[in-house]
Amino acid sequence: MTSNNEKLDINYFYNGVLYGDRTILSQAITLAESSLNIDKEDFRLILKKILPHTGNSIRIGITGIPGVGKSTFIEVLGMYLIKKYKKKVAVLSIDPSSPINMGSILGDKVRMNELSRSDNAYIRPTPSKSKLGGVAENTRESLLLCEAAGYNVIFIETVGIGQSETTVHDMVDFLIMLQIAGAGDDLQTIKRGIFEKIDLLVLHKAEANNSLKQTEKEYHNFKQMFSFFSLKESNWTPRVVKCSSYEKYGFDDIWKIISDYIDKTKASIFFEKKRKDQNKKWYDVLVNQKINNLIFNDKDMVHEILKYRNQVSKESIEALNLSDKLIEVLKKKFN
Amino acid sequence: MTSNNEKLDINYFYNGVLYGDRTILSQAITLAESSLNIDKEDFRLILKKILPHTGNSIRIGITGIPGVGKSTFIEVLGMYLIKKYKKKVAVLSIDPSSPINMGSILGDKVRMNELSRSDNAYIRPTPSKSKLGGVAENTRESLLLCEAAGYNVIFIETVGIGQSETTVHDMVDFLIMLQIAGAGDDLQTIKRGIFEKIDLLVLHKAEANNSLKQTEKEYHNFKQMFSFFSLKESNWTPRVVKCSSYEKYGFDDIWKIISDYIDKTKASIFFEKKRKDQNKKWYDVLVNQKINNLIFNDKDMVHEILKYRNQVSKESIEALNLSDKLIEVLKKKFN
Repeated sequence: MTSNNEKLDINYFYNGVLYGDRTILSQAITLAESSLNIDKEDFRLILKKILPHTGNSIRIGITGIPGVGKSTFIEVLGMYLIKKYKKKVAVLSIDPSSPINMGSILGDKVRMNELSRSDNAYIRPTPSKSKLGGVAENTRESLLLCEAAGYNVIFIETVGIGQSETTVHDMVDFLIMLQIAGAGDDLQTIKRGIFEKIDLLVLHKAEANNSLKQTEKEYHNFKQMFSFFSLKESNWTPRVVKCSSYEKYGFDDIWKIISDYIDKTKASIFFEKKRKDQNKKWYDVLVNQKINNLIFNDKDMVHEILKYRNQVSKESIEALNLSDKLIEVLKKKFN
Repeated sequence: MTSNNEKLDINYFYNGVLYGDRTILSQAITLAESSLNIDKEDFRLILKKILPHTGNSIRIGITGIPGVGKSTFIEVLGMYLIKKYKKKVAVLSIDPSSPINMGSILGDKVRMNELSRSDNAYIRPTPSKSKLGGVAENTRESLLLCEAAGYNVIFIETVGIGQSETTVHDMVDFLIMLQIAGAGDDLQTIKRGIFEKIDLLVLHKAEANNSLKQTEKEYHNFKQMFSFFSLKESNWTPRVVKCSSYEKYGFDDIWKIISDYIDKTKASIFFEKKRKDQNKKWYDVLVNQKINNLIFNDKDMVHEILKYRNQVSKESIEALNLSDKLIEVLKKKFN
């Protein structure tokens, strides 16, 4: 790795990531997460070189409230795919700032104990940034880097707060929501709009000794509800599966459903269309970022912005009036 | 109220809000929440006229996880202030999209049953928008409208997810965090950075029959911890109070602490400085919004943006390359 004063060695990252070197992959992701503008631009050079080698994974989103067992689920499903299908599995997350007891570097790895020790798995801890937008952006770039490094199943985990499900939906091929089986959560407790986004609902922690009757009831209710849905553009009716990570049951079904979805949507070109739409959304994000850079890296502009900002007082009216004045100045720069 | 085709009657809103008419206040807030650009600009004309009449309330933020009893707490504290101090109380909230069972129009009013029927209270239900940024912006404007309408204690409630505590901190004079008393939550479960923001920690649901010993322990631990803090710029050491909304106890202490804080920070001009800093942050938000409008309302620009956007394919590389090309075009417009 180069020092801060030297030009970044793009080939070091390019070769390292493509070779699947996990240390270099981590270094590249750290670079992606850097909030320094200069690092970001350097990183984009690496990304450009790597991008032709991306796109060859199944991208799976995992959402559900804290305590539903997302990490355990990913651990068991990940190990299942590594052992049974010789997959290479990467785990990323996309979360707004987390409490101390969640999502720390040690945390992720401890919670996915077996997976974190596997040669065929890569677990990237939650970045500690607090801006959802920034984290989402980094997760997308990390996803592409993992693909270039040869990971062919990539999990993106989210706690499902605020906008995060929409964000993850815009990034993955297949979205799974976990619910605690038999907890009596009914449709009322589920966020608006989530059912248009998920492809599979997993009733998790469905251990044999655990409120079997309630789980059965939920299973049938959800199944029936999904069957009432008008068909989505994907032509896919969301599925429901009972699953226990503890008893390792339900995973054959789950993988069969995911594979089935991928086959069907690839046949119908929906798969391709969805990725194209997702790239358009990424383009929008990039355009917004770059427009901001354009303005906030322009010395004259920043001078004007700060000049008016310094006049803001404790009266709210001035914030509004001064921002209007500033815009009149900026308008003259556009012609 | 005017129809969509007519010019908005600014005086209708100005007089109505200043007179304290709750129907017109609600209409004005609805206008503020409108996502239509045209409504927003109309609304800003009303806001400008109203702004000189704002600033005269105590702005109090209330944060804490779902289930900690924020609504009940606000209901009891609100009624206490109305009855004992003849205050006029408004309740707003600043939350990312909520599950169906929370934050609905009915929900807020049902949960604050007594307060919602008081002539001296105004409860504005959670807006259903899903963008935190947008909601925050609306909440700030709603706050100013409520002040103009004569409310002199304003509560802003947040579930404390993601960035919402920082956002609410940037809007209020005093921030209260609720914790469930005796639940054994220790420092580990509290979000990073929150202690630099809060002014008062309330151990809520501290009913007499309820894990008294554990509550006492927590009370002393927090108190001790706060005493170790290096002094904040406000020169205020965060306080801890045991409180039960059910048994209506702790509220004398709480109001005394808040009044004490306001008196001290007004004497030291910290109060004024904080509001000024908050207005600077509002200015930043407004500048960002207006710069975006400047670009995305420019037909030529939008044409260029869409031209490149339409070329984005399922290959991620194109999103990056095309956004670069676009920026080169936009750069030529800046001179």
